[in-house]
Amino acid sequence: MRAVDIIMKKRDGGELNRDELAFLIGGFVSGEIPDYQVSSWAMAVFLKGMGPKEAAALTEVMLRSGDTIDLSALAGPFVDKHSTGGVGDKTSLVLAPLIAALGIQVPMMSGRALGHTGGTLDKLESMEGYKTSLSVDQFKEILRRDGFAMTGQTKEIVPADRLLYALRDVTGTVESIPLITASILSKKAAEGTEALVLDVKYGSGAFMKEAARGEELARSLVDTGTALGLKVIALLTDMDEPLGNMVGNFLEVEESLDCLEGKGPEDLMEVTLELAARMALLGGKAKTTAEGRKLCEDTLAGGKPRELFLQNIKSQGGDPEKVLALRGKYRSIYAGEIRASRDGYISRIDAWKVGHPSVLLGVGRNRTEDPVSPTAGVQFHHKRGSLVKKGDLIMSVWAADQKGLEGALPALEGAIEYSDQAPPQRTLILKEIS
Amino acid sequence: MRAVDIIMKKRDGGELNRDELAFLIGGFVSGEIPDYQVSSWAMAVFLKGMGPKEAAALTEVMLRSGDTIDLSALAGPFVDKHSTGGVGDKTSLVLAPLIAALGIQVPMMSGRALGHTGGTLDKLESMEGYKTSLSVDQFKEILRRDGFAMTGQTKEIVPADRLLYALRDVTGTVESIPLITASILSKKAAEGTEALVLDVKYGSGAFMKEAARGEELARSLVDTGTALGLKVIALLTDMDEPLGNMVGNFLEVEESLDCLEGKGPEDLMEVTLELAARMALLGGKAKTTAEGRKLCEDTLAGGKPRELFLQNIKSQGGDPEKVLALRGKYRSIYAGEIRASRDGYISRIDAWKVGHPSVLLGVGRNRTEDPVSPTAGVQFHHKRGSLVKKGDLIMSVWAADQKGLEGALPALEGAIEYSDQAPPQRTLILKEIS
Repeated sequence: MRAVDIIMKKRDGGELNRDELAFLIGGFVSGEIPDYQVSSWAMAVFLKGMGPKEAAALTEVMLRSGDTIDLSALAGPFVDKHSTGGVGDKTSLVLAPLIAALGIQVPMMSGRALGHTGGTLDKLESMEGYKTSLSVDQFKEILRRDGFAMTGQTKEIVPADRLLYALRDVTGTVESIPLITASILSKKAAEGTEALVLDVKYGSGAFMKEAARGEELARSLVDTGTALGLKVIALLTDMDEPLGNMVGNFLEVEESLDCLEGKGPEDLMEVTLELAARMALLGGKAKTTAEGRKLCEDTLAGGKPRELFLQNIKSQGGDPEKVLALRGKYRSIYAGEIRASRDGYISRIDAWKVGHPSVLLGVGRNRTEDPVSPTAGVQFHHKRGSLVKKGDLIMSVWAADQKGLEGALPALEGAIEYSDQAPPQRTLILKEIS
Repeated sequence: MRAVDIIMKKRDGGELNRDELAFLIGGFVSGEIPDYQVSSWAMAVFLKGMGPKEAAALTEVMLRSGDTIDLSALAGPFVDKHSTGGVGDKTSLVLAPLIAALGIQVPMMSGRALGHTGGTLDKLESMEGYKTSLSVDQFKEILRRDGFAMTGQTKEIVPADRLLYALRDVTGTVESIPLITASILSKKAAEGTEALVLDVKYGSGAFMKEAARGEELARSLVDTGTALGLKVIALLTDMDEPLGNMVGNFLEVEESLDCLEGKGPEDLMEVTLELAARMALLGGKAKTTAEGRKLCEDTLAGGKPRELFLQNIKSQGGDPEKVLALRGKYRSIYAGEIRASRDGYISRIDAWKVGHPSVLLGVGRNRTEDPVSPTAGVQFHHKRGSLVKKGDLIMSVWAADQKGLEGALPALEGAIEYSDQAPPQRTLILKEIS
C-alpha cells in the first residue's frame, strides 16, 4: 500500500476502506507517512467528502491510535454531552452535576478556549487549585465518587486527532464535516461513554454559521456515532447570540452556580434542560423527553446537583467555600462599561462580535499556548428584547490589561443592534436529529 | 499575508493573484512555508483549477524563482520544442539539428526518462562522453556554434519547479493542467526561447490518456505561453502506439540518424516534419505551415542537419565516428525475441504496454535516482497494419540483465493486438491549437 495511491483514490472521489485509513492514520502517528501527504489527503477529503461508512472507519481508526479508557469496573450508565462550541456556553458545568444527580455517570473530557469560543477547562481552572489534567485512575475514581469528572484530553488518548487537528489548522482543512465528525467522536468514544448528546450550534458565534451546515454536521455525527455503537441524539441550537448573561471564565462558573440554584437566565436554562432531558432519556432514567425534562427540573430544584458541583470542586483540587465567597467579586481591575447609544429595543447581540473581542479581554486565546485570564469577561445587563434608554448600562466589561480593554470596548459596542419594534422571539432549539 | 488564507481562498474556488502566488512559491523555495501547506494548496488547485491569468501568474512567479538564461548576445531567432512525453519519441534529436540548419537557434533544455516515458538526456548520454549538464556559458557557446545545444535543467533554473514537482509526485497532484502548464512553461521561458512548438500527446503511452484532456492541456499551454509573451503553437498527436521502430536509448539515437539520412520510419517522420514546419513558421523561415514543411523536407535531403548532429556530438564531448561505428551493434547481451502468436494483422501495439516493461529492460526508471542502460530496448520489425504469420519476428528485445529480460518479455508480448481485417489508418496529428 502506498500513501500516494490512497490520496489519489480520495482525490478522484473514491471511498477509502478501513485498511487504507488505518495505513494512512497509523503511518502518520508513527511518523512513517509525512505531514505533506496527510495534508494533501485532508484537502481531498475537504473537497470530495466521505461516505458514512468511510467516516465511521476513520473515526474508529483514530480512536484506536492511542489509549482508550475502560469504564467497565464502574456502575454506569454512562452519558456524555458535547458542544461544537460557542460564546457564553457553560451548559457542561450545569449538566454534569445535574445528570450525575440522576444516577447517570458523566465521563466528561473537554477542551480549551480557541478563537472566539470558550473552553470548559479554562472555566474550571478559573477556580484556584482546580485540576483538569487527571490521570486515568483519578478520572475513574472521581467519576465513581461524584458521578461525574472533568478532564482534558491526555497525550495518550487519540494522538491521531491531536496531530491531525494541528495539521488541519494550518492547511485550510478544518471545516470539513467528516473530519470534524471523526475528531469529535473518536475522543468521545475513547473516553468510554456509551451515549452522547450533541449540542450542534449554528449562527454567528458558532463554527457553522448556517443552520443547514449545522444540520449536516449533526446528521453526520449521529450517523457515524450510531455506526460505532454509541447511542446519539443531536440538538441543533441557536448560537447567533451569547448564551446566558456572562461570558468569561470565573464569570461563567458563577452563572453555572446560578443555574444550579434555580436562578439561571431563561435562554441558558432552556438549552441546558433540553440537553439534560435527552441525557436522562439515553441514560434510561426517562421514557420520553418530556418526562426527562420534568425529572431534571425536579432534580435541580431538589438541590443535589449544586451539592455535587461543590463536591467535585473539592475532588478536583479546588476549594468550594472560596469559590462561593468569590461570587460577584472575583473581577479584573481593568473594568469598563458599554451603555446604550440610543433609545429603543435591543434587537440582537451578535455572538461573534462578543466572542471575538473577548480574546482581547483575555477570556480566550488565538494560539493554544497562550494563557487566559480567570477574571476577564463580559456581563450583560440587557439582551435581545430589552427596551432601553440611551445611557442605560448594557455590558460590564473586565479585561486582563488596559490595552485589551481599550481594544475590546468599541468592538463590543458594535455587537449591539437596536430596533424601534420589539424583535421576534428566538427559537433556541431548532431541531432534534437522532 | 498568511499561507493558510491563500490555501482557503483557492479551496473555496477563488483566483489567487500574483502577490499571493509569489508569497506562497517564494516562501516554499526559501523554506519559510512548509511543504504540508504547499501540498494542501496543490490539491486545492488540482480539484478547483486555475483561471488563465492565475496560471500565467504562477508560471511567471516560478520562472523568477531562480536564474534565467539571457540569450540576447546571440543572433536568434530562438525556437524550441517540448513534448509531454511518450514511448519511442525521439523527435527532439532530429528536430534540433534540422531547425538549426534553417538558421534558427534551438536552446533545448530536456528531461530524463521517468516511468514508462523516455528522456532525451538519457538517449544523448547513451553516446559515450556526451555531456548534458552544460554550464550556461557552455550552453550559449554550443548554441552559437552548432545552432542548437542540448542540456538538462540546472539547480539554479526554476528551483520552484524542482521542489514543487517532487512534492506533487508524492501527494497525488501531478495530473493538474494548470500545474503542468506552469511547470513546462516556467522552464521553457527560463531557457531564453522566444517561441515554442508543443507536442501534446494523448493515448495509452501519453500522460493524458484522453484526447479531450490533451486538448485541454494544449489550450492551457498555448494561452498561458501567449500571456507570457511567447509565440506558441501546439499539436495534439497520437501516442497510443510507440513512435518509430525503436524504443531505447542508443537505439533511438540510431533511429534519429536514420531520420537525418532520409531513412526514418513513416510515423516518426510525419510527426517530426509537422512539428518542424511549425518551428520554421515561428522562426520566420516560412509563411505557411505547408511552406515550412517543404523547406524542412528539402533541408533534410540536403544533409546539413546530419552534419550538425554529428558536429554537436563532438561539441558536447562525444565521438561522432564512434557513434557511427556502433550503429546496429551497440546492444546488450541479454537479448530476446517476440514472435507472432497467430496469423493475422497487427491491429495495435499498445504504447503503455511497451513503455511499462521497458523500465524492467533498463530503458527507463521508476525513481529519478536510478540508472538506465544505453544498450537496452526494443526494435519493432512489424507494427500496426502488418500482415504476419504465426512465428514471424515482431520485436527484438535487449535488457540490462537477465531478470529484467524475463520480466519484460511476457509483458511486451501482451502489447500486441491482432485482427483478421486490416486496421484503419491512424491519425497521427489530431489537431493544431494556436
